[in-house]
Amino acid sequence: MKRNVLVGQSGGPTAVINGSLYGVVRAGLESPETGNVIGMINGIEGFLNGRQMDMAPLAENGELEKIRTTPGSYLGSCRYKLPEDLTDPVYPELFQKFEENQIGYFFYIGGNDSMDTVSKLSRYAADHGSDIRIIGVPKTIDNDLVETDHTPGFGSAAKYVASTVREIAIDASVYDNKPSVTIVEIMGRHAGWLTAASALARKFEGDNPVLIYLPETAFDTEKFLDSLRRKLETTRNLVVCISEGINDGNGTFICELASDVGVDSFGHKMLTGSGKYLENLVKEKLGIKVRSVELNVCQRCSSSCLSATDLREAVNAGSQAVWAALAGETGKMTTFRRTSDVPYTLEYGTADVTGICNKEKAVPAEWITCDGSDVSPEFLTYARPLIQGEVDVPMKDGLPDFAFRH
Amino acid sequence: MKRNVLVGQSGGPTAVINGSLYGVVRAGLESPETGNVIGMINGIEGFLNGRQMDMAPLAENGELEKIRTTPGSYLGSCRYKLPEDLTDPVYPELFQKFEENQIGYFFYIGGNDSMDTVSKLSRYAADHGSDIRIIGVPKTIDNDLVETDHTPGFGSAAKYVASTVREIAIDASVYDNKPSVTIVEIMGRHAGWLTAASALARKFEGDNPVLIYLPETAFDTEKFLDSLRRKLETTRNLVVCISEGINDGNGTFICELASDVGVDSFGHKMLTGSGKYLENLVKEKLGIKVRSVELNVCQRCSSSCLSATDLREAVNAGSQAVWAALAGETGKMTTFRRTSDVPYTLEYGTADVTGICNKEKAVPAEWITCDGSDVSPEFLTYARPLIQGEVDVPMKDGLPDFAFRH
Repeated sequence: MKRNVLVGQSGGPTAVINGSLYGVVRAGLESPETGNVIGMINGIEGFLNGRQMDMAPLAENGELEKIRTTPGSYLGSCRYKLPEDLTDPVYPELFQKFEENQIGYFFYIGGNDSMDTVSKLSRYAADHGSDIRIIGVPKTIDNDLVETDHTPGFGSAAKYVASTVREIAIDASVYDNKPSVTIVEIMGRHAGWLTAASALARKFEGDNPVLIYLPETAFDTEKFLDSLRRKLETTRNLVVCISEGINDGNGTFICELASDVGVDSFGHKMLTGSGKYLENLVKEKLGIKVRSVELNVCQRCSSSCLSATDLREAVNAGSQAVWAALAGETGKMTTFRRTSDVPYTLEYGTADVTGICNKEKAVPAEWITCDGSDVSPEFLTYARPLIQGEVDVPMKDGLPDFAFRH
Repeated sequence: MKRNVLVGQSGGPTAVINGSLYGVVRAGLESPETGNVIGMINGIEGFLNGRQMDMAPLAENGELEKIRTTPGSYLGSCRYKLPEDLTDPVYPELFQKFEENQIGYFFYIGGNDSMDTVSKLSRYAADHGSDIRIIGVPKTIDNDLVETDHTPGFGSAAKYVASTVREIAIDASVYDNKPSVTIVEIMGRHAGWLTAASALARKFEGDNPVLIYLPETAFDTEKFLDSLRRKLETTRNLVVCISEGINDGNGTFICELASDVGVDSFGHKMLTGSGKYLENLVKEKLGIKVRSVELNVCQRCSSSCLSATDLREAVNAGSQAVWAALAGETGKMTTFRRTSDVPYTLEYGTADVTGICNKEKAVPAEWITCDGSDVSPEFLTYARPLIQGEVDVPMKDGLPDFAFRH
C-alpha cells in the first residue's frame, strides 16, 4: 500500500516558503511511490486539532501554480514547540494521527524551531520503531541555519532590502543641498545577514549605505556619532543600515536604551525600535535632518522583489526533501553546498537535523570590517548570486494574483 | 533665434516624477522650435545659485531612457517658496538669469507649492512684458490637486499601497488561529486618496483591509475600538489602514495625542505616528496581538510597483506641457480629464495655474461610508484604472538599474 505525504509550514513567513511547499507537493504527487499529499493547516498544532487538507485538487485547478509565487504560508503557520520530554503523551497522540492518515513521509518547512520539531519527531520515531521518514525543509530570511550555504527566503529578502535601500537613498538625496541622515532598520535579532545585504545597494565605492551595523559586533553610540560626522564631510545625504538586534555587546539591545525612559500615554514603557532610538540620538547630538525607516514585515512578505534564484532553490529544497525521504533518509534537513561563486553552482544534500536545530549561524567576523561599520567584499561575493533573476508574478487587475485558502 | 527650454523638479519625490522630466526633455529636444534643454539642479533654488545642466547629452548616451523608470527627482528638488511680493528683487534676478540662458520656455514639475511658483513667475512675466511661457507639470502621490482628474505619481503609489497591504494581510494571517490587529499607516496629512487606495487590495467582499480611515472624517477612538471588536467576530486577523493625518475633526492629529505624554531618553516629547499610537491603544484596550507598519518613504520611491498607466500619463503630462507652451500657452498646468471609466479614456488639457495652487482636493464625502470607516464602490471605479499595467524596470546584477547624476 502506498503511504501518504504530510507537509506543513511553521515559523515566520518568507516570500518563497510557498515555493518549498510547491516543491514538496509537486514531488509527492508525481512520485509513483507515494499516495495522497496532505497539508497540515497551522502546522503541527493545527494537525493535532484535526486541521488538514488534501493537496491534490490544487494541482488540478491551477491553484498550486499560483501558490509557487504567493508569499507567506499558504497552509498557515504555528509557533508550537514540542515538549523536550519524548515520553510526553503528545508524541503517541501525533503518531496515532499519522497512522490514521496512513502517513509514510513527513515534511516540515521552517527555521530553527521547526527543525527542532523534525529532530524530536525523528528521534521519537527511531525510539519507537516507526518507519515514517521525517525531513526538514529550511526557510528563513535570517539565513542563520548551520550546515547549509544559505537558506531559501534569504535571497528574496536580500533583494528586497538591497533594492529598497537603493530607492531610499534616492529619496533621501533629492534635497542634496542639505545634509541629512536616514537610518534604515532591517530584520535580524541575532544574525546580521539581511542587514549586510544592504551593501549590495551600492552602485559605486562610497555610495550609500555608507555605514552598516550588524548585531555580531558591539555597537558603540559614541563611535557611531563620530563615524557619522566623518562621513558627512564627503556624503551629504547619509543612509545608515542597522539590524534591529544591534546591541552593546553585553546583552543590551540598543532599542532597550530608549524603552528605559520613554513612557506612552497609558503609562507603559514605550517600546521603540533601534532605528527610532538612533534617530532621536542623532537629532539631539548632530542637530541635522534625520529620519528612520523600519522595513518591517514587507521585507519578508513582498513578492515584488522575488529572486528567481531563491525561488528555484526553495522549490528544489522541497522536492529534494521528498526524494531524500523516498531514498530512505530520515531525521535530516535539505542543505545547499556551494561549489563555485562565479559561475554560481550549487549541490543539494542533506544533513542530520539534530546538529542544526537550536544553533545560529552568525555572519563570520572576517566578513565584517574591523571598525564594525561595514561588510567585506567576501560577503558581496557570497550574497550577489542569491539575488539574481526576476520572477514574473501573475497579475490580475493591476495587482499580484495570490493563492489563498477559501 | 531658437530659445531654450528650462525644466526643474520640486517638492517630494514620486516614482514617476522622472517620467515627466523625460516627457519634457524628449519633447523639448524633438521640437524644431526650441533650442537646448537645460535642467535646473535642485529646482529654482539651485538655478538661482547657478546650478544647471545640459540635458541633450543624456539623450545620446542612453541615460534619458533610464531616467524614465528611475524613482525620485533626477535633477534634485527644493522646498523654496518665492516671495508673495512680486516686487521682491529675486524676480528680476531670476528673469535676468532666464535671459542670460536664452530661456523661452519654463517647466516646473511638482505639487501644490510648485504650482505656486509657476503662478508667481507667470504673473511676474505678464506684469513685466516677458514672453517666456511658463507651465506647470503636476506630480504628487497625494492626488490632491484641483482641476485635474488625478495627478501623476498617485497611480504608482496606489499600486504600491494596494499590493503591499495585500501582502501584509497575508503576513498577518499566517497564525490565523490567533486573533490579531495590524495597523498600516499610509502617507497623506490632509487628503486620504492614497489610504483609500488600500481598498483595492481586497480580493472578495469583507477581505482585508476591513477598516479604512481617512483624514477627511473625524476619527473617534471609542468608535474605532467598537468597530474593531465587531469586526474581530468575523475576521480573526484584521488589517486596518489609516492615513498619517487622521484627526479628531477639531484640528488635533491622532498622533499628537501620544506625543503629549511620551518622553524619550533625551527628555524630548516622543513624536510617534498615528499607527504607533493606535497600536498602543489597541494593546491596552483589547489585549490582543497588535502590530503597526508605517509604509514610510517606500510608497513614494519604490520602482517595484510602477503602474504602466501612471508612467505613461506622467510622460505625456511633460510632453503636453511643452506642446502647450509652443502653442502659446503660459500660466497653466497640464490637466487630465477622464472621459470614461470603462474603458478608461483620458484627455489632456491645461488649466489656469493660479486657480490650482494653494488649494487641496479632498476625497469627496460621498465616496466615504457614513461611519467613516471605509470607501465606496465609486472610489474603486475611480482608482482601479490608475494602477493598471506593469513596467519592466531595467535590471542589472539582480537590482534595478537607476540613472543618477555623477
